Amino acid sequence: MFESKRILGIDPGLTRCGIGVVHGTVGRPPKFVAVGVVRTNSELTLPERLVRLEEGLEQWFDEQQPDYVAIERVFAQHNTVSVIDTAQAAGVAALVAARRRLPVAFHTPSEVKAAVTGSGRAGKEQVTTMVTSILRLSAPPRPADAADALALAVCHAWRGGHTNRYAAPVAAAQGRS
Amino acid sequence: MFESKRILGIDPGLTRCGIGVVHGTVGRPPKFVAVGVVRTNSELTLPERLVRLEEGLEQWFDEQQPDYVAIERVFAQHNTVSVIDTAQAAGVAALVAARRRLPVAFHTPSEVKAAVTGSGRAGKEQVTTMVTSILRLSAPPRPADAADALALAVCHAWRGGHTNRYAAPVAAAQGRS
Repeated sequence: MFESKRILGIDPGLTRCGIGVVHGTVGRPPKFVAVGVVRTNSELTLPERLVRLEEGLEQWFDEQQPDYVAIERVFAQHNTVSVIDTAQAAGVAALVAARRRLPVAFHTPSEVKAAVTGSGRAGKEQVTTMVTSILRLSAPPRPADAADALALAVCHAWRGGHTNRYAAPVAAAQGRS
Repeated sequence: MFESKRILGIDPGLTRCGIGVVHGTVGRPPKFVAVGVVRTNSELTLPERLVRLEEGLEQWFDEQQPDYVAIERVFAQHNTVSVIDTAQAAGVAALVAARRRLPVAFHTPSEVKAAVTGSGRAGKEQVTTMVTSILRLSAPPRPADAADALALAVCHAWRGGHTNRYAAPVAAAQGRS
């Protein structure tokens, strides 16, 4: 069952890894908890940056003690050099979460956009505007990576809740059959 | 300076991550130390597999105590779903090495092939044959991922040595200027 839980959303990246934390309860709008970014110095080597990212994420997990983790899914068709960096940042995020035995979900950018704006093709500004409104923030979260991470957490609060409300009776039905 | 050192080569992957360890000395053929694979169960979730891979790699690093780590570079133009998994496995490998403050080098598949066979376009069987010969093994290492990891370590023994023999006088010259 998905009840009142802390969800930590991660928009993976090496230069800026967005982090957004919300408190979600089924049937209510999620509440804002925290937002920020983990940055790593581009003058470091890639392995060193992964270590810094791990340290930064560990600190967020320690402080926020999330119950669920939502990470943006990385696709190979973003056919650029940076997709490898982003995939590795997402891998470190998944590793840190799984070491703590936290459930990890991956949501695609279009799932996130659809969840917060109603359209899978919404632009970055639209996502930021909707996240600001849904979470009743006094100002839009900056940078965009931070807003995206909050959108991921909001998406997970709604989709996760929905999935689990559906999964529970299904599991119960299967148990009876 | 690059002297007599243990080099741990990693051919990253989630299903089979190849590991090959050689002992390299400038001007001499590298010596075989160990070879194997870390496997993770494909029925686990991706985050769980990354945790298992990390555990397996930590065990190899503990046992082998390498001085240098060489990892195969992952490219986005291998435009398949699995490139993301491979990139994440490579990221975990780089993370484990960098946490131990070990120098990490990335070599491309063609650099590795060229180093061991003389041709950047050599096939997998040719690489295995040459690695078996260079390291005077009684039988070809299997699976291919294990042979590739040994080839990476051999490549690094040769290229790393060369790079460092070149880098030392350059650094000295810069220090004087």
